[in-house]
Amino acid sequence: MDILKERILKDGKCLPGGILKVDSFVNHQMDPNLLKKEAIEFIRLFSDTKITKILTIEASGIAPSIIVGLLLDLPVVFAKKKTPSTMDNMYRTKIHSFTKQRDYNVVIAKEYLSPDDRVLFIDDFLAYGNAAKGIADICQQAGAELVGMGFIIEKAFQHGREVLENMGIRVESLAIVDSLDNCEIKLR
Amino acid sequence: MDILKERILKDGKCLPGGILKVDSFVNHQMDPNLLKKEAIEFIRLFSDTKITKILTIEASGIAPSIIVGLLLDLPVVFAKKKTPSTMDNMYRTKIHSFTKQRDYNVVIAKEYLSPDDRVLFIDDFLAYGNAAKGIADICQQAGAELVGMGFIIEKAFQHGREVLENMGIRVESLAIVDSLDNCEIKLR
Repeated sequence: MDILKERILKDGKCLPGGILKVDSFVNHQMDPNLLKKEAIEFIRLFSDTKITKILTIEASGIAPSIIVGLLLDLPVVFAKKKTPSTMDNMYRTKIHSFTKQRDYNVVIAKEYLSPDDRVLFIDDFLAYGNAAKGIADICQQAGAELVGMGFIIEKAFQHGREVLENMGIRVESLAIVDSLDNCEIKLR
Repeated sequence: MDILKERILKDGKCLPGGILKVDSFVNHQMDPNLLKKEAIEFIRLFSDTKITKILTIEASGIAPSIIVGLLLDLPVVFAKKKTPSTMDNMYRTKIHSFTKQRDYNVVIAKEYLSPDDRVLFIDDFLAYGNAAKGIADICQQAGAELVGMGFIIEKAFQHGREVLENMGIRVESLAIVDSLDNCEIKLR
């Protein structure tokens, strides 16, 4: 997606440790106009699938997901990183964060995911694929069908795609970063 | 906003401790179609103001904010509850959560809020007003003008509006809950 790639090269910042900082338009300040174009591209890429629900994880996945949900008129559910005191019946999975070097749980209330659901998962980044694996686990627990996963930016050198495709999951990304070596952003 | 009030009465659940559970359409599963109607109502309510930026706090404020931002073609910034390792120059404020009985910090990178900004803050709930006060503090630190605050649901019996209006902040809510006594939802 050219407009996104141009924006990454223009406004993205490469930091040590394989970090691509895009907080001026993706995950802190957000550009709704670009998000809408990204949502349209996700819809085009998955246009051959039947989807009943959009799933994401708080917080950075919410903005792109809600615009996909708005355009497709579908409910959007975000997995929570803290279990609300008001939630008593949930699917839970453990996710390992490489960036933060710790494990955390995410939960989705059982009433919002069922065997009738055909799920599209949307998130801002695909890195090692750990968060996405967690969502796949929750879909399996719920008996819901995971029709695919869409990411705004894929960091190919962290190999999350292989992990997910080996699980039989369809993966689509809007921009693929091949390398951040020597603090230079190399896009595919 | 009648369609919202009807939805709260139909799908909202009253829990002990003054909690209104609306996780089927506001803050876990979200209804993008209703969110769009809410965004249009926010825009109507603040139509006499000049706005340059939408501010919110992760996670439940992101969905309504991004749709307001999309319709007004304005950037949206969400305050973060954890300081990213990649952020080194930020406004920070401490917020007390009554629900969780603990304090937490929120941060906004300095580059995304400036004295040129005229800010509309959007969030899902107004309860005691503590999160909103924190945002007002950050706007003051940045020298940005806070033109108003819009909430999907206001719990009037927790008096956040008085707190904010005493600070000179304009407050608009789409639905006002007067009481949750005896587990009955009483809307204004």
